[in-house]
Amino acid sequence: MTAGDRAAERRAHLIGAVLDLIDGGGIPAVSMRAVATAAGVSLAQVQYYFRSKDQLIVEAFRHICRDVEGRAAAVGFDGPARSVLRALIDLWLPVDERLSRDARVWLAFSAEATTRPSLMSFAAAVDEELREAFAQILRRASESGELSPAADPVAAAAGLLAVIDGLVVQSLVLDEPERAGFLAPRVEAHLDLLFLSSREKGGGQGGVIEERT
Amino acid sequence: MTAGDRAAERRAHLIGAVLDLIDGGGIPAVSMRAVATAAGVSLAQVQYYFRSKDQLIVEAFRHICRDVEGRAAAVGFDGPARSVLRALIDLWLPVDERLSRDARVWLAFSAEATTRPSLMSFAAAVDEELREAFAQILRRASESGELSPAADPVAAAAGLLAVIDGLVVQSLVLDEPERAGFLAPRVEAHLDLLFLSSREKGGGQGGVIEERT
Repeated sequence: MTAGDRAAERRAHLIGAVLDLIDGGGIPAVSMRAVATAAGVSLAQVQYYFRSKDQLIVEAFRHICRDVEGRAAAVGFDGPARSVLRALIDLWLPVDERLSRDARVWLAFSAEATTRPSLMSFAAAVDEELREAFAQILRRASESGELSPAADPVAAAAGLLAVIDGLVVQSLVLDEPERAGFLAPRVEAHLDLLFLSSREKGGGQGGVIEERT
Repeated sequence: MTAGDRAAERRAHLIGAVLDLIDGGGIPAVSMRAVATAAGVSLAQVQYYFRSKDQLIVEAFRHICRDVEGRAAAVGFDGPARSVLRALIDLWLPVDERLSRDARVWLAFSAEATTRPSLMSFAAAVDEELREAFAQILRRASESGELSPAADPVAAAAGLLAVIDGLVVQSLVLDEPERAGFLAPRVEAHLDLLFLSSREKGGGQGGVIEERT
């Protein structure tokens, strides 16, 4: 293990402590001292790796973003756009304990960011990045004729991110076992609005059956 | 002024202090003592009107809900469903200082509720009520042929509330002057997905012009 590896490992250990603190008591539970105590290290060690409480919070949120990105890289992007999007969305929906923790940290971060300029710009940049990633997939779906002609890829990307964010906020005030059943059909219903059904794409036989002449 | 009026006025004064505290420092800024100080009354007076910190927070959030409901009652429900919905949505989008405060309080409340069962059920009940109110309007839109046949009123109501919640979260990390420009086109784009255009409803001449035979 190199010195760089060791430093990365220590930072990750401290970030883990920050995430647990936010999950338990929100952003106010985070202080340099509380992180030192939770991680079982000295205050000086926390100060060696992180400048301030704000940096701790931003790095903790960045860690969650990088984690989702890492898992997103394992999603195959070759299939139908709708399946690709669904697989990406499923990486984030809070349907188990770990994902719920991440979503709670995101929500606490979002609430805190509304009054702290240093967090605000980071939160806005993450949203922008996600909209762009969705738009890229939806542009491809538009070119391949999967997207409804009524949907503009850029507008649809913004709408999709909004739906996901809103559903996550709403699902977090439900008991965890109820969340999957709340989220899945609502995500599908929104994708139904954006994507043509196989029948509309001209592949189905429904139209023929319904013709009575 | 009756004794009842005076009590209502005092409660409202205390709730105003709670809202300002949440807006300035989030839920952790609220305590019985902090509210007494901010409102310029004794701790005993706060305790006379409110049992606990949780009750203060729930009542502050309920106050915002009642305020929106009150303004919603002034919206005429007779026009086209899309205009009615748009007018209701505009009561909530954080495009000025007062509405931004209300939205920040909602977001702080939502984040706090994820780990506090006493707040959780209230937050979930408010969401459910809003979905039902939207569904009622969308059912009428479906019957009158305004809604796209692809949209189910109940699913569309849930999607609409999710879009609004998500857009509000995202807009709160933008500078206030940017918010209206961020929100309005995205709300319209989502309503475009749900409602038929005048042309699709059979009123437009576009189809005739495009026929070449």
